[in-house]
Amino acid sequence: MRRLAAITFCALVALLLAPTSPAPRADEGMWTFDNFPKKAVKDKYGFDVTNEWLDHVRLSSARLAGGCSGSFVSGDGLVMTNYHCAVDCVQQVSTEKEDYGVTGYYAKSEAKEISCPEIEVNQLLAIDDITSKINAATKDLAGPEFNKAQKAEMSRLEKGCSEENKYRCDAVTLYHGGLYHLYRYKTYRDVHLVFVPERDIAFFGGDPDNFNFPRYDMDVAFLRVYENGKPAKTAEHFSWSAAGAKDGEAVFVPGNPGGTDRLLTIAQLEYSRDVSYPAFLIRQSEIRGILTQFGKLGPEQKRISQDELLGVENALKALRGEFQALLNRKLMEGKAATEKALRDKVAADPEKQKKYGSAWDEIAKAEEAKARLRKAYAYKERGSGLSSDLYTYARILVRGAAERPKPNSDRLREYRDSALPSVEQRILSKAPIHKDLEQVTLEFSLTKLREDLGADDPFVKKVLGMESPESLSHALITGTKLDDPELRKKLWEGGAKEVDASDDPMIKLARLVDPEGRAVRKSYEDEVEAPEKVNSELIAKAISEDQGTSVYPDATFTPRLSFGAVKGWEEDGKAISPFTTIGGLFDRATGKEPFALPESWIKAKKNLKQETPMNLSNDTDIIGGNSGSPIINRQAEIVGLIFDGNIHSLGGNFWFDEKLNRAVGVHSALLLEALRGVYGADRLVKELRPDKAGGE
Amino acid sequence: MRRLAAITFCALVALLLAPTSPAPRADEGMWTFDNFPKKAVKDKYGFDVTNEWLDHVRLSSARLAGGCSGSFVSGDGLVMTNYHCAVDCVQQVSTEKEDYGVTGYYAKSEAKEISCPEIEVNQLLAIDDITSKINAATKDLAGPEFNKAQKAEMSRLEKGCSEENKYRCDAVTLYHGGLYHLYRYKTYRDVHLVFVPERDIAFFGGDPDNFNFPRYDMDVAFLRVYENGKPAKTAEHFSWSAAGAKDGEAVFVPGNPGGTDRLLTIAQLEYSRDVSYPAFLIRQSEIRGILTQFGKLGPEQKRISQDELLGVENALKALRGEFQALLNRKLMEGKAATEKALRDKVAADPEKQKKYGSAWDEIAKAEEAKARLRKAYAYKERGSGLSSDLYTYARILVRGAAERPKPNSDRLREYRDSALPSVEQRILSKAPIHKDLEQVTLEFSLTKLREDLGADDPFVKKVLGMESPESLSHALITGTKLDDPELRKKLWEGGAKEVDASDDPMIKLARLVDPEGRAVRKSYEDEVEAPEKVNSELIAKAISEDQGTSVYPDATFTPRLSFGAVKGWEEDGKAISPFTTIGGLFDRATGKEPFALPESWIKAKKNLKQETPMNLSNDTDIIGGNSGSPIINRQAEIVGLIFDGNIHSLGGNFWFDEKLNRAVGVHSALLLEALRGVYGADRLVKELRPDKAGGE
Repeated sequence: MRRLAAITFCALVALLLAPTSPAPRADEGMWTFDNFPKKAVKDKYGFDVTNEWLDHVRLSSARLAGGCSGSFVSGDGLVMTNYHCAVDCVQQVSTEKEDYGVTGYYAKSEAKEISCPEIEVNQLLAIDDITSKINAATKDLAGPEFNKAQKAEMSRLEKGCSEENKYRCDAVTLYHGGLYHLYRYKTYRDVHLVFVPERDIAFFGGDPDNFNFPRYDMDVAFLRVYENGKPAKTAEHFSWSAAGAKDGEAVFVPGNPGGTDRLLTIAQLEYSRDVSYPAFLIRQSEIRGILTQFGKLGPEQKRISQDELLGVENALKALRGEFQALLNRKLMEGKAATEKALRDKVAADPEKQKKYGSAWDEIAKAEEAKARLRKAYAYKERGSGLSSDLYTYARILVRGAAERPKPNSDRLREYRDSALPSVEQRILSKAPIHKDLEQVTLEFSLTKLREDLGADDPFVKKVLGMESPESLSHALITGTKLDDPELRKKLWEGGAKEVDASDDPMIKLARLVDPEGRAVRKSYEDEVEAPEKVNSELIAKAISEDQGTSVYPDATFTPRLSFGAVKGWEEDGKAISPFTTIGGLFDRATGKEPFALPESWIKAKKNLKQETPMNLSNDTDIIGGNSGSPIINRQAEIVGLIFDGNIHSLGGNFWFDEKLNRAVGVHSALLLEALRGVYGADRLVKELRPDKAGGE
Repeated sequence: MRRLAAITFCALVALLLAPTSPAPRADEGMWTFDNFPKKAVKDKYGFDVTNEWLDHVRLSSARLAGGCSGSFVSGDGLVMTNYHCAVDCVQQVSTEKEDYGVTGYYAKSEAKEISCPEIEVNQLLAIDDITSKINAATKDLAGPEFNKAQKAEMSRLEKGCSEENKYRCDAVTLYHGGLYHLYRYKTYRDVHLVFVPERDIAFFGGDPDNFNFPRYDMDVAFLRVYENGKPAKTAEHFSWSAAGAKDGEAVFVPGNPGGTDRLLTIAQLEYSRDVSYPAFLIRQSEIRGILTQFGKLGPEQKRISQDELLGVENALKALRGEFQALLNRKLMEGKAATEKALRDKVAADPEKQKKYGSAWDEIAKAEEAKARLRKAYAYKERGSGLSSDLYTYARILVRGAAERPKPNSDRLREYRDSALPSVEQRILSKAPIHKDLEQVTLEFSLTKLREDLGADDPFVKKVLGMESPESLSHALITGTKLDDPELRKKLWEGGAKEVDASDDPMIKLARLVDPEGRAVRKSYEDEVEAPEKVNSELIAKAISEDQGTSVYPDATFTPRLSFGAVKGWEEDGKAISPFTTIGGLFDRATGKEPFALPESWIKAKKNLKQETPMNLSNDTDIIGGNSGSPIINRQAEIVGLIFDGNIHSLGGNFWFDEKLNRAVGVHSALLLEALRGVYGADRLVKELRPDKAGGE
C-alpha cells in the first residue's frame, strides 16, 4: 500500500529529477509516453509498440490528482483505482452510523453512486515541448531571478493552454530542466464512489504484510467520473482480461510515479540520510503512537482516525525502507564513485569545467542552507509543520485573499489561475471535519513546534504566547468556525475584505504566520531551490553530453509507462512464485486483525474457486504514485491492478534492482471472482465485460 | 534530567570501556578514587587533594543501584539525590487519592517517612585490584571459553568478598579489561522517602527546557537509609555550604557515570549510528506518542503514566543529541584518523602486529553479528523487547527457579549469589502494578515484535499463535495473577516445583520464550560480547603501550570523581552566566504546563529572596548516572546537586568538549531557601545544618 504520504515526502526530499546511470537495463525505467523505448520492448518481448497503442494507453489511463493513478475501464466513465487511493472519500462519505470503510460499499444502481467531495481525475490529452520558451525566458539569469522568471513563464504558458480553465495545464520539468513539457489534462472533479470492498480485505495483513509478498489483498475501488450530472462518456478505456497474464508474459504499467531520487548528488543523498529521513521517521513514529492510542478511545475515534493511521504506517514503512537503502554503504560508495568519475571527466576538459565544474559544490552549499532553514520552513510555511485541516483552510483563505488580486504571474504558484479550480474544490469541500482528531494533531504539531525551534524562539513565543500547545490548540479548535463549508465559501468569495474582517481564531493564527512564512519561503527558494535547479540542470547536461539521451527522467507524478514481465524472485535461495491464490488467503486468515476476513468472504468461501489467482508480482519499474495503475498486456487489456511493491522495491527510490525489485498487484481474475462471488456486483461485472454475459 | 533510560541504553550500546585520547585535557575525566589526578588539580586550582579527603568524599557519596548517584548529608542516614531518581518510589507510594508526584511530600516527623519498595543505596567501602586473578583464570582462552572462565572467576571472587551477602560485591572491568577491580559496597535496601517538592518545580520547563540552560529546576529528593528499622548512622557525610561556590571556583563531583563511548572503534560507532540509535529513536518516539495519548484518558491515567513518559522523553532527547553527535562527520573522520594512526603504528611493528593487528577487524566482525542478532536478542532475551513489569516478574521467576539450584559460577550472571538480594527486593516489591498501563506497553511490544521479526517468523508465530498483539496482551494481562506480591513470594520461594506447576499465562509465556532466549543469548555472548571484550582489551593494551596510563577508564556506573570549576560558556557569541536566580524562575513562569509554578511557590513568592541563585553550571565531566551527584567544594561541603547537563553535554558520550560541555545543578542556597521559605521544612533544614539554628 503505497499511499500519498510517501509521495509527498518524495517530493520533499527529491527536489531533483535526473536520468539514471548509463544505459537503462532491461525492464528499468519510468518512460514518458513520447519517448517510450519501443526497440527495447521489441528486442526483449517481441512486441511492436505502435504510436496508436501508446495513445490508446495514455488516454485510457488516469491520474488522481491527490497522488495516485487509475484507469478508465468502461465507456461510461468507470475508473478503477486502489481502495487506499479512495480512502479519503470513503471516510468522508461515511458517518458514525454507516462506516463504509468497514462495511465496504456497492452502488447497486447509478442513483446510489455517492459523490466524493475532493477527488480530481485527470486524463492526459497532449504533451507540448516548451523547453525553448522556458530557456528563452531564463536566459543569462541565476538564483532568485532565474526562479522568478521561470515561474512567471510557466504560469503564462499554463494559463494560455488552459483555455479559461477548460483544461488543467501543468508545466513539467524533466531531466532536471534539460526538458520542459506542458501537459494538458482533461479534468473531472465530479467523481462518485461506485464500489469498495471492506477494509479488512482491501488491507488484509495490514501493516505487517505491507510491502511484503506473498500477499492477499483486494485493494480496489471503482469510481465514476461525471460530466453535467451524468456519467461521462469515455470512449478511450481498457478492456478486461479475465485470464490475466502468465508467468513471464510481458506486461505494461501506465501511471504516475510520484518521485525518484536516482541521481541526487552525494551532498543531497547525505542530507536525506542524515537530516530529513531521521527527522521524518522520528516525528511520524510519535504521531503513529498518538493515533494508535486515540483510536482506542472508542469505535468512532477508531473510525475517524484509522485511515490517517494507515497512511502514517505506510509512509513509515516505506520511508524506513528508503532510509535503510541510504545506509547501504556499498550503494553510497558506488554513487560517490560515479559522481567522482563524472567530475573528473568534467575537470579534464577546461571548457566543460568552466560550464559545469562548480555545480556539485553549489548544490552542497544549497544543502547547507536547506539544513539551516529546514525547521523554520516546515513550521512557518509548509503544511507538514502544523497538521490541521482547519489551519490549512485558514491558510488558504488568508493566502488566497492576498494572492488572487495579483497578476497571475506574480502569484505564489499554488494560486496561479490554472491551479485555482483544485484549490476551490478543496476549500469548498463538504467533507466532515472531526474536531477531536484535529485537536490531537494540532496539539502534537504545536508541541513539536516548540520542541524543534525551542521555547525561547521568537516565532514560538509569538504563536504560543502564554499558552501551552494543549491550551492553544483547544482554544483554536473550539473557537474556529471554519468547519462550516458555507463560512469558508463566504470568506473565499468575499476575498480580502471578508478575510481581513474575520476574527476567527484560526484565521488570526494564519494571518500571524503568513509574513514569516513568506519570508522563509523566499529564503528557501533563493538559497535552496534556485541553486539546486540551476546546478542540477548543469549536471544533467554534463551527463547528457557524456552518455547521450536514451535515458528516462526521474519520476515527477506525471504520466509514465513502465514495462516488464510477470515474475517472482529469489529470496534467501528460495523461489517466490509470482502468484498467490484465494486458497492461500483463507489459509492465512486467523480471525484477528489484521488477518481477519470480512464476514462476506467467510460466507462466500464455498462459492469461490480456491485456485483463482489473487495477487501477482512483476518486474515493472514503479514507485509511490503508481498506486491504482492498471497492469495491462500487449492487447491493452487489464490483467491486474498495482497496489504495492515488495520490500526490495523501497530501494527503488534510489536505484532499480532488476533481480529483486517487484511491483505487486491484484489479479484481474480475482477482481471478477470476488465481484461476482462475494459481492454479487453484477452491474459492475457486466460493465467491465460488456461482451460477456457475466460468465466466461 | 538525565534519567535511567539513558544509562540503560548506554550500557546497551557501549559494551566497550576505554581510555580516551592522549593526555586528558584539564577538567576532563571521570576518575576512579584510587587514581585521581591530584597533580592536575594542584596545578590548575592550587588545591592539595589528600588521600583522607578522597576517602571522606568516597564514603560520603552514594550510588542508587537503579541508575543514579546521591550523597549522605547527615549523620542519621539522610541521602540527597534528584527527584527524578526517586520518581519510581514517589509513584509507587502514591495512590489515586494522594499523588505525591503532584503535591510533593514532606515527612514532618520520622514516623511519616514512607518506605520505598525498590530503592537500593550503595556506599563504596573498598576497592581491590583483581586483575591478576582474572587474567590467570582466562589465560590462553578466547571466544566463548574466555567468556565463561572470566564470568566464573568473577562470580567466585564476588561471592567470597560478600561474606554471605553482608556486602554487595561487584567485579568491575576497567580500561576494556586492562584492569579488573572488585568493589565492595555497604548496601541499604530499607530506604524511606523524606522529601520531594512538586513535580512542577522539580521539572519546571519540562521537556522543552530539558538539557537546556539557563534553567530553573528544584530537582531534589531527600531519602533516608534505615538499619534495623531505625535511621542508619552515617558518620561519613557531607556538610552544607549555604553560600555555594563562586564563578570560577573549583568544584568536585563524586558520582556514578553510567557509561561513555569515548573510544569505540569506528565499526562500533557506525553500528551505533546506523543501527542502534535510529532503531531506538523510532521505537521510543512511538511509545512517547502512545503514552502521551494514554495520559489524556483522565487524571488517573495521567498519574500512572506521567513518570514513564518523562523518562521516555528524557531518553529521546538525550539519545537524539548523541545521535546528532555521531552524525558529525568531522568527529567521525577524526575518530577514523586516530584509529588509523594507531593501526599503522601497530602494523609497523611485527611483534605488535602479531599481538594486536587483527583486533579491529575482529570487532568489525562482531558488529556484523550484533546487527544480525539484534532483533532476536531484543525480543527473546533482553527486557527491552517485551515491555511489561508482569512479564518481567514471570521471567525472573522462571529463570530464578532454573538458575538458583546450579552452582554459583555456572549461573546466568544476574542470578549469582551476590546479585540475588537485589533480585529478591524487586520480585517481592509491593509497588502497585497498573494493569491498564501494562496492557498498553505489552500490546505495543507485541506489535513491534511482529513488525520487527515479521509475521511469518517462527518465534512470532509461536508467541502470537492465532492471536493479535491486542488480544494476546489482553488475555495475558487480565489472566495473570502476578500482580499479587504474595503469589510472587510463593513462586520465588517455592522454586522450580511451584513455578513448573503454575499455569499463570504470563509464566507460561516466559516458559515459552526461555529456551529461545537462552539460545540467542549464547550466540550473542559468543559472537558479539566475547570477541568485543577480548579484542577491546587488546586495543586497550596497544593504546596503553603507546600513550602510557595517565588516562581514565570509560564510565561503568561505578564511583568516580570529576573536577572542574563553576563556569558558564559562550553560545552564538553570547556569554551564558553560570547562575540563574529565583527571580528568573518567576519571570519564566506562564501558568501553563510545563511552565506552571506550583501553588506553594506562588504563595511563597514574597517571602523568597529573588536574587537567590537557583541553578548553576560547571565544567566537570559527567554523564547519565551522575544524576543526584553532589557538587562539593574543596572543604567537601555541598554547594549544589547535579541534575542535568547542557545540550552540548550530550556529545559527552563520545568526547569531552571543555569549551561547551557543562554540567547543570541545583544551587545549595536555593535548596535551603525553598525548604525554609516554600515548604517550612525546618526539621530537614536543621538536619542539614545542625550547627545553625535554621538561619545564617
